[in-house]
Amino acid sequence: MDNIFVTGAAGFIGSSLVDVLLAQGKQVVGWDDLSTGRLEFVAGAQKQPNFKLVRGDNLDLGGLTAAMRGCDTIFHLAANADVRFGLQHPRKDLEQNTLATFNVLEAMRANGIKTIAFASTGSVYGEATVIPTPEDAPFPIQTSLYATSKLAGEGLIHSYCEGFGFEGYVFRFVSILGERYTHGHVLDFFKQLIDHPDHLKVLGDGTQRKSYLYVQDCLSAMLQVMNRSLAKKAKHRVEIFNLGTDEYVQVNDSIRFICGAMGLQPRLEYSGGDRGWVGDNPFIFLDTKKIRATGWKPQLTIEQSVLCTLRWLQDNRWVLQHR
Amino acid sequence: MDNIFVTGAAGFIGSSLVDVLLAQGKQVVGWDDLSTGRLEFVAGAQKQPNFKLVRGDNLDLGGLTAAMRGCDTIFHLAANADVRFGLQHPRKDLEQNTLATFNVLEAMRANGIKTIAFASTGSVYGEATVIPTPEDAPFPIQTSLYATSKLAGEGLIHSYCEGFGFEGYVFRFVSILGERYTHGHVLDFFKQLIDHPDHLKVLGDGTQRKSYLYVQDCLSAMLQVMNRSLAKKAKHRVEIFNLGTDEYVQVNDSIRFICGAMGLQPRLEYSGGDRGWVGDNPFIFLDTKKIRATGWKPQLTIEQSVLCTLRWLQDNRWVLQHR
Repeated sequence: MDNIFVTGAAGFIGSSLVDVLLAQGKQVVGWDDLSTGRLEFVAGAQKQPNFKLVRGDNLDLGGLTAAMRGCDTIFHLAANADVRFGLQHPRKDLEQNTLATFNVLEAMRANGIKTIAFASTGSVYGEATVIPTPEDAPFPIQTSLYATSKLAGEGLIHSYCEGFGFEGYVFRFVSILGERYTHGHVLDFFKQLIDHPDHLKVLGDGTQRKSYLYVQDCLSAMLQVMNRSLAKKAKHRVEIFNLGTDEYVQVNDSIRFICGAMGLQPRLEYSGGDRGWVGDNPFIFLDTKKIRATGWKPQLTIEQSVLCTLRWLQDNRWVLQHR
Repeated sequence: MDNIFVTGAAGFIGSSLVDVLLAQGKQVVGWDDLSTGRLEFVAGAQKQPNFKLVRGDNLDLGGLTAAMRGCDTIFHLAANADVRFGLQHPRKDLEQNTLATFNVLEAMRANGIKTIAFASTGSVYGEATVIPTPEDAPFPIQTSLYATSKLAGEGLIHSYCEGFGFEGYVFRFVSILGERYTHGHVLDFFKQLIDHPDHLKVLGDGTQRKSYLYVQDCLSAMLQVMNRSLAKKAKHRVEIFNLGTDEYVQVNDSIRFICGAMGLQPRLEYSGGDRGWVGDNPFIFLDTKKIRATGWKPQLTIEQSVLCTLRWLQDNRWVLQHR
């Protein structure tokens, strides 16, 4: 793991990963179509000789194959991550997540690259019947096009491991928080409270229970697995890890953290119902025993992660602007 | 369920379904690109006024949408069903199974059609850790591009049920046998024994344990569920059923049935190993309690199904010809 290719390199998690890898002395090629990624996030990386950013689209297999040449390990983080809006454009998740992952695998195969880390999601458990939900939970029913497209990506990776001798590491994330956060409930609430500090619109009834993980904890978990497994030349070809903290909070808790930090007491206007949108999962809490067994543990609690995210948004209001 | 659209209508299972539906007095539109389907299989149906065959490709969303107009229920059986050869052309399963299913769902949405029955596969359980394998088995690792593409199709159907109020019935088949069988081990063995009755090449060591189901039993299970659930206006939006018998046989048993019926004692030449090809699952046996709870039960044993298939092949040698 010396020459690393990161898809979604200008995104929230991708650009944070690039910085960590560069700090570790790796050679990094970043790939991003800049549809949601931000050049500002890779401005620091671009000053370093070990980094190259290639602007390209995962649906362009030729460009992807060329850009990947000479790399030995892929972190595939590029995705359409707008879970909520899948139903408004059903083809988007299919193309940007499933087909994109297929192209990444085909580009790897063309280049003889066999190691891939994949950002999947705890949403693949649908409305889990076992909570906290372990990696081998009962075979779920999918409830969103986003999770469906990520699960299809997982399956493709599994099949390439089985069929082409790839080594695959699948990480099922809870929602990630922290510096460079560009979408999700903390940003939504922060935006609203700037616009109208006296009231806050909340999707659902606020009792939805969700898990979150700090971006640097997410990265340290992935790197722990990748370094450990590659060092050991692990025999297993696919490993799946849930990534999350061993706690969850209600949406109402998150509101309390944010309003407390901003010194606001807005009137809360709930849209009602036990879920925020069609396909929203009212209780997400992953069993993280497997990743903890590697020695990893998160450094921030959910409350600390929310507050860190809020502080970063306060210091970087430019991300609120439409580009 | 009066106006039925069948994809893969000229295929093995599809054409058999068309005949059953026509016999029940339904209006049927068959859709097939005739890439593996056979016009001979729908020759009888085409004499009936209630049947219309439309030649088209599932990747042609416009054509699919137009052909589906006026139907109320979709049986989506069209697929690339060549499980063994996925690694030779990885894009084929993705396009013909995943993207095709997406297009079927989009064509339904455009037409306001909400009920779909889907031919999935027991292969989605990968190398199952629980045998017999129930529908809610532990979340599996995918071992073939075929199963990956079918599981992605299932997920899309689940998501359309959740998001767009569709009603989905997913049937996970074991291998299907019977009249109009066009590929699989019975055909492979039969072909070989015609060419060289003194020896038979067998993939693996012959101890692979597999399950099979007679095509008419498969159809009666699907129709039982569809009629019952539609009659009851079932509330659940997705139902998943394993379809199989409550037995399995070794490849060696199947060889014994076939050679016995043909009066041959060929020398058996095993390729060796506990599986026939990369990604082959050495033990497939599904738990079928759920479908049996509907009152359905299969009429033929595996041995009877193998023999029926063999007799049909003997009477219809034309299917052995390349077209």
